[in-house]
Amino acid sequence: MSRTILVLNGPNLNLLGEREPEIYGSETLADVAQSCRAVADEAGFAIDFRQTNVEHEMVEWIQENRTGLAGIVINPAAFSYAGYPILDALKMVDCPIVEVHISNIHRREEEWRANSLMTKAATGIISGLGIHGYALAVRHVIWLAGRA
Amino acid sequence: MSRTILVLNGPNLNLLGEREPEIYGSETLADVAQSCRAVADEAGFAIDFRQTNVEHEMVEWIQENRTGLAGIVINPAAFSYAGYPILDALKMVDCPIVEVHISNIHRREEEWRANSLMTKAATGIISGLGIHGYALAVRHVIWLAGRA
Amino acid sequence: MSRTILVLNGPNLNLLGEREPEIYGSETLADVAQSCRAVADEAGFAIDFRQTNVEHEMVEWIQENRTGLAGIVINPAAFSYAGYPILDALKMVDCPIVEVHISNIHRREEEWRANSLMTKAATGIISGLGIHGYALAVRHVIWLAGRA
Amino acid sequence: MSRTILVLNGPNLNLLGEREPEIYGSETLADVAQSCRAVADEAGFAIDFRQTNVEHEMVEWIQENRTGLAGIVINPAAFSYAGYPILDALKMVDCPIVEVHISNIHRREEEWRANSLMTKAATGIISGLGIHGYALAVRHVIWLAGRA
Amino acid sequence: MSRTILVLNGPNLNLLGEREPEIYGSETLADVAQSCRAVADEAGFAIDFRQTNVEHEMVEWIQENRTGLAGIVINPAAFSYAGYPILDALKMVDCPIVEVHISNIHRREEEWRANSLMTKAATGIISGLGIHGYALAVRHVIWLAGRA
Amino acid sequence: MSRTILVLNGPNLNLLGEREPEIYGSETLADVAQSCRAVADEAGFAIDFRQTNVEHEMVEWIQENRTGLAGIVINPAAFSYAGYPILDALKMVDCPIVEVHISNIHRREEEWRANSLMTKAATGIISGLGIHGYALAVRHVIWLAGRA
Amino acid sequence: MSRTILVLNGPNLNLLGEREPEIYGSETLADVAQSCRAVADEAGFAIDFRQTNVEHEMVEWIQENRTGLAGIVINPAAFSYAGYPILDALKMVDCPIVEVHISNIHRREEEWRANSLMTKAATGIISGLGIHGYALAVRHVIWLAGRA
Amino acid sequence: MSRTILVLNGPNLNLLGEREPEIYGSETLADVAQSCRAVADEAGFAIDFRQTNVEHEMVEWIQENRTGLAGIVINPAAFSYAGYPILDALKMVDCPIVEVHISNIHRREEEWRANSLMTKAATGIISGLGIHGYALAVRHVIWLAGRA
Amino acid sequence: MSRTILVLNGPNLNLLGEREPEIYGSETLADVAQSCRAVADEAGFAIDFRQTNVEHEMVEWIQENRTGLAGIVINPAAFSYAGYPILDALKMVDCPIVEVHISNIHRREEEWRANSLMTKAATGIISGLGIHGYALAVRHVIWLAGRA
Amino acid sequence: MSRTILVLNGPNLNLLGEREPEIYGSETLADVAQSCRAVADEAGFAIDFRQTNVEHEMVEWIQENRTGLAGIVINPAAFSYAGYPILDALKMVDCPIVEVHISNIHRREEEWRANSLMTKAATGIISGLGIHGYALAVRHVIWLAGRA
Amino acid sequence: MSRTILVLNGPNLNLLGEREPEIYGSETLADVAQSCRAVADEAGFAIDFRQTNVEHEMVEWIQENRTGLAGIVINPAAFSYAGYPILDALKMVDCPIVEVHISNIHRREEEWRANSLMTKAATGIISGLGIHGYALAVRHVIWLAGRA
Amino acid sequence: MSRTILVLNGPNLNLLGEREPEIYGSETLADVAQSCRAVADEAGFAIDFRQTNVEHEMVEWIQENRTGLAGIVINPAAFSYAGYPILDALKMVDCPIVEVHISNIHRREEEWRANSLMTKAATGIISGLGIHGYALAVRHVIWLAGRA
Repeated sequence: MSRTILVLNGPNLNLLGEREPEIYGSETLADVAQSCRAVADEAGFAIDFRQTNVEHEMVEWIQENRTGLAGIVINPAAFSYAGYPILDALKMVDCPIVEVHISNIHRREEEWRANSLMTKAATGIISGLGIHGYALAVRHVIWLAGRA
Repeated sequence: MSRTILVLNGPNLNLLGEREPEIYGSETLADVAQSCRAVADEAGFAIDFRQTNVEHEMVEWIQENRTGLAGIVINPAAFSYAGYPILDALKMVDCPIVEVHISNIHRREEEWRANSLMTKAATGIISGLGIHGYALAVRHVIWLAGRA
Repeated sequence: MSRTILVLNGPNLNLLGEREPEIYGSETLADVAQSCRAVADEAGFAIDFRQTNVEHEMVEWIQENRTGLAGIVINPAAFSYAGYPILDALKMVDCPIVEVHISNIHRREEEWRANSLMTKAATGIISGLGIHGYALAVRHVIWLAGRA
Repeated sequence: MSRTILVLNGPNLNLLGEREPEIYGSETLADVAQSCRAVADEAGFAIDFRQTNVEHEMVEWIQENRTGLAGIVINPAAFSYAGYPILDALKMVDCPIVEVHISNIHRREEEWRANSLMTKAATGIISGLGIHGYALAVRHVIWLAGRA
Repeated sequence: MSRTILVLNGPNLNLLGEREPEIYGSETLADVAQSCRAVADEAGFAIDFRQTNVEHEMVEWIQENRTGLAGIVINPAAFSYAGYPILDALKMVDCPIVEVHISNIHRREEEWRANSLMTKAATGIISGLGIHGYALAVRHVIWLAGRA
Repeated sequence: MSRTILVLNGPNLNLLGEREPEIYGSETLADVAQSCRAVADEAGFAIDFRQTNVEHEMVEWIQENRTGLAGIVINPAAFSYAGYPILDALKMVDCPIVEVHISNIHRREEEWRANSLMTKAATGIISGLGIHGYALAVRHVIWLAGRA
Repeated sequence: MSRTILVLNGPNLNLLGEREPEIYGSETLADVAQSCRAVADEAGFAIDFRQTNVEHEMVEWIQENRTGLAGIVINPAAFSYAGYPILDALKMVDCPIVEVHISNIHRREEEWRANSLMTKAATGIISGLGIHGYALAVRHVIWLAGRA
Repeated sequence: MSRTILVLNGPNLNLLGEREPEIYGSETLADVAQSCRAVADEAGFAIDFRQTNVEHEMVEWIQENRTGLAGIVINPAAFSYAGYPILDALKMVDCPIVEVHISNIHRREEEWRANSLMTKAATGIISGLGIHGYALAVRHVIWLAGRA
Repeated sequence: MSRTILVLNGPNLNLLGEREPEIYGSETLADVAQSCRAVADEAGFAIDFRQTNVEHEMVEWIQENRTGLAGIVINPAAFSYAGYPILDALKMVDCPIVEVHISNIHRREEEWRANSLMTKAATGIISGLGIHGYALAVRHVIWLAGRA
Repeated sequence: MSRTILVLNGPNLNLLGEREPEIYGSETLADVAQSCRAVADEAGFAIDFRQTNVEHEMVEWIQENRTGLAGIVINPAAFSYAGYPILDALKMVDCPIVEVHISNIHRREEEWRANSLMTKAATGIISGLGIHGYALAVRHVIWLAGRA
Repeated sequence: MSRTILVLNGPNLNLLGEREPEIYGSETLADVAQSCRAVADEAGFAIDFRQTNVEHEMVEWIQENRTGLAGIVINPAAFSYAGYPILDALKMVDCPIVEVHISNIHRREEEWRANSLMTKAATGIISGLGIHGYALAVRHVIWLAGRA
Repeated sequence: MSRTILVLNGPNLNLLGEREPEIYGSETLADVAQSCRAVADEAGFAIDFRQTNVEHEMVEWIQENRTGLAGIVINPAAFSYAGYPILDALKMVDCPIVEVHISNIHRREEEWRANSLMTKAATGIISGLGIHGYALAVRHVIWLAGRA
């Protein structure tokens, strides 16, 4: 049984903590990675944590990992709205996929933020729970692995 | 500091486990309550777990608890789509609110299932993670309490 | 084989005969019950005839009768348009469901009257045939029972 | 008083029983005619039963019978969606018109199937009750004749 | 120079004078033909006046007359809304086309009556001037011929 | 002539003064009742002032008072948007109905707040004049009674 | 019986003949007036021919002439799309109103040109017949006067 | 403190009492002015009552009175739907604005009548209370002045 | 194995080569038939090539050939947009169906040309490749037959 | 070659500097005129600077200047949304037209502010650059004149 | 004359044969390339066959080949829906472009799959003919070259 | 104070002058750079001029320059419509942003060209002024710097 969880982060998340902190908070992506690893370590799982501003890199990471994972946690960020190649790649994956958004995308002023393309390929979605959403998503993947 | 979490369940969830199990799974609402309590106990929190098919009962439970809670976890079920009085009641609450849906409402065949009114009053949403979503929501309320 | 048919009536139908008679006619709900019983008696079936203005009462009646009936005939009246909990309850039922509307809801001036939520759970619909629609619906349930 | 009921069937119903039987069932149009006549005979009414794939034939049958009938039962089939000349012809008729659809057109996957033009000229509609819908429609015409 | 004007009438106009007279008036199609001829005779033009309930007949009449006319006056009646083959045929015609509607289709209760497909091929439209609209249309064709 | 005015208040108005005071102000429902009675007393009218969170209670209050009143003043609050049974009940009433909203529902950020179902049954609407709107509505009922 | 016909012209028609001649032709408004008078003279009617770029002037001309005319012919030009005060004024008039557009507004590239507000108050509409449309409209008013 | 209330009336209201009396009633604008003054006098306020068919006159009246008033009562009539300059002028005003419509614009057959642009600048709206709405609006301005 | 391919052509295609040649080219339907036969002969298949302006004729040809063919190639032309009976007939066919349009219907100025009803019953579509599209469609049917 | 630039300002701009200064800034229209003249003088051009609250005045200014200008700079302000007569007048002009908006109309909260009718007649648009947009527009007209 | 055909494949097609084989079949991209070359070789044409997951690579390949080709065959895959830069690049190309989709994008459950941006730049489209669509597209380019 | 202005150009602008010259003109991107520098030099500012077909390169350029600039001038070209990551990056920038489009995107035939995502992050927009728009945008940044 695979014990690796791939955590994928979309564009501009490399600047988390600095970018619109009134919406996204002041913690950095390194903090997020650490919170994921804390949960995973405890359960004997590993975290493969990545960020990219490059759509095709995201596609290729998913293609390369379409088998052999315990799960994928993905915050597609701005790729959520026009990242059709990522959606098609996610559809080839054989493990659970949990989509995470730091802010509650269903309550943002810009209406289009509520409609993430990725949801069509995701097992479930966690939205608006801040960076804690990542840790909960990792926890969910582990819980599913325990039931498989 | 309050250490009680109110977990609210909407109509037909009294039949969870029996109702459309291919969508909602075979575990019962008692199983859900137990999973919430397991998380809460560990952190020294209490769970006040309720279900109703009656809209105004839901409204009144929220009115009565609009102060004094650590958080509300709510699965509004079919109240999600026309429960305007519940939405207005939730807007008076002074604690975090986590909305939970067992199935991924953003992927259901019926389009209206994706648009829960309650999201406008919720801190965040967990959708599609099965009954495990409840436990994660409780965990989130506790996490927030720890940061306050 | 079950020989009971549950006939459910939604809000304001307790005033049938008095309410907007140019649309709904001058016969009362007692007349409707009698016409259903006339058809059922002849075929050796029983009618359980009810009316309520209370949404959750309708939900609970359906929950309690989700097995063991020959069929349900339902005139949801004004519950047709926002009665999501009733829809979800009807989806748990294991017998045929015939939806009845006294007036032709597809021709009413108010456009929303044409879109009954319940249709998504109903076997079929009879609309615009006046109170005779009830008797025909009962007859259809009996006909189905005869073919099962 | 007229005692003739005209039963009109639209395109492709000549192949009923063979066409998409998982939707329309395995009985033929001859079976339908027989079931209509069984109801009519008992009440001393006659059935004039016709089918056509030709729109203008349907128009002309209605024009010729715009007076002198007890009622019209019409399953417009695929004429339901663009048969404007039929709609205009039906508006000239002086007897009740009952529209019948074998499947529940309000639940079909193709959304346009829910919007029959003919409903704007029909007294009422029976949809989703299989071929039994025809017999019920005939019965309704007879019931109306008895009240006139 | 051609001096023949083709006047085409669509379905159910054979019953003009009898059909919904509160909308369409009590004059017959023969009256209309006579009023067209009165205008044409005076100017030395001939009227070829036809009515059909058959879409393909209308198409073929237009195909056969796509050259050699002074003009076409067409009241497409119910063909206005789904008569795509007629529209495509009209596009092949080399003379002016005047579309006539007896009632004001832009004010009718049914919204779709305002959108005639034929307008996309017509030089102009006369709507709501009763049967007098035909005579005015003929007059316009003659006026255009005089300017050519 | 009836001299009683029924003043109906929908869900969450029992908490008026405490609920979102930046929108609804700090006066309580008791203050509202008093302001209504001040106007009525002066003119020799009585006020029957009620509040409920229960939709069917509102329906039944209206049914019971469908005759015999000088007028109804109703602030449907969150029932405005899905309270179809209330709308149907209001349509049976034989006295004037004035709909009141404390805030200007046509200017609220949430667009659906502008579309009250009840308006279709109301004589008129007063929106955005704060709790003073109730007193004006009562005054209007009295004015109408004086003209009858 | 009144024998005066008011012919009203909206904004920019004072430049007819010069303005976008590929759409509106090269004849001037004086030519139009003359063509109207030619028709009217022959039948013993008088033409009151006016043009304005001023919306309230149009409103006042209609108000002053709301009785005492044989008919109004109006080319509202650009007032067609936002001239609500003109529409309300036309609704007070007690004679026939014929709306004229020189180009076929139902075929113009800009979609909004097809939806003239005025049509809701007009007896009928003539569109796309060039300036000849005015003469036909005058003729129609005279024809109606002859039938009254 | 200012004690003047400006009451503004839009186009065609100069003909109130004569215009579509089944909708707007038979009282004249002079009656309206009198009813406003009756309320104002009693409270020691003055009414500045005006009507215009001219959009820019309305704009300029508002510009000139953008300070120094107790309040504005405005029945924009047909200016409600395209009077953007009036809306922008109203936004500069420093006193309360009450919008009045004689008929219930939210129930009129023409859907666009329900959407008054002015509402975006108004404190509140009174619609459907006949000419009595003016007096109530004046009363509201006075009530606000008493609370300031 | 069947070796006959039915090639069906809709209305106005009898005039191909003459009709709007800037869109449809100058080759005739006989040229099209020849190009289909050239491809078929080479592979030992036969072409049954037909054209009609009559909707029900198209329906009946399909009904009669619903079994026993290698494939159907259909250019529905103007039947594409309202030919519901043809769609229902195509759904009964047991061989592959290739839809052909000479012009690229997805790029035409008239938006409705992009939405052919028939696509819902077709295996695939070739659009915009001129009359060569027919030959390619025939080739595709033969290729499928070779793989069966 | 013409060396005059007409700068047109729409309603309420006479109050620029005072009106909603958080959106439009605190400079006055006189400041704007001066900034335009500063740019024009340097290049030997003249500025004809005007403001009006009167739609037909704007129309007539454009009609009178439809030839003989180097260019038009227009800030239509609230005329942007229903000023169809101005649009039609602008279409007759033979010089470049630059549309200017002080605020970024594509980002305003009111959605309709993004859709200026005038853009359909304008060479280009400058939006959101404050009153500096005028000077840039003047500069652009001069640049174009230099290239002609 | 150029004899090279560029065949472009979008994202995730590198996994063809493995990705959702119930939709896309089990043949690989190498099989596709071979089938294209088989057709081209026979006619003396060369195939330049490429795949990329990188949008800008697709853009640059098109830029570099905007002249000098016999044709382009493009399966844009998931680039179809947001690949605006590719669309703009295709508009610069001087040879025919045939768009290919393996599945019938006009019948897919996800509605957006029916609207490929690229169609606006393509000569024609082949959709739903499986990988055979590529060979037919190549054949069409060769046919066009033979007619040039 | 920073005196550097970053000028960013999106995809296919590397071919400016060659690409659709009837829309975009015949000057090249080098000409554009030169015109920007001419304006900047005069005022003692520097231009950092870049072009890319790569979305993430644009994102990263913006990230790296989110502080320390006098302003950004951006012509996003085809990135305007799906470049969500660029929009999010622009929102982090602390200097003015002027969006430039060479053609008037609000008048282009393709409706989507009018809706640039970037406008939501831009100070203002210049559209339709040809390549001169760049120089004006640079001038505006300098003007703002002079006022800071």
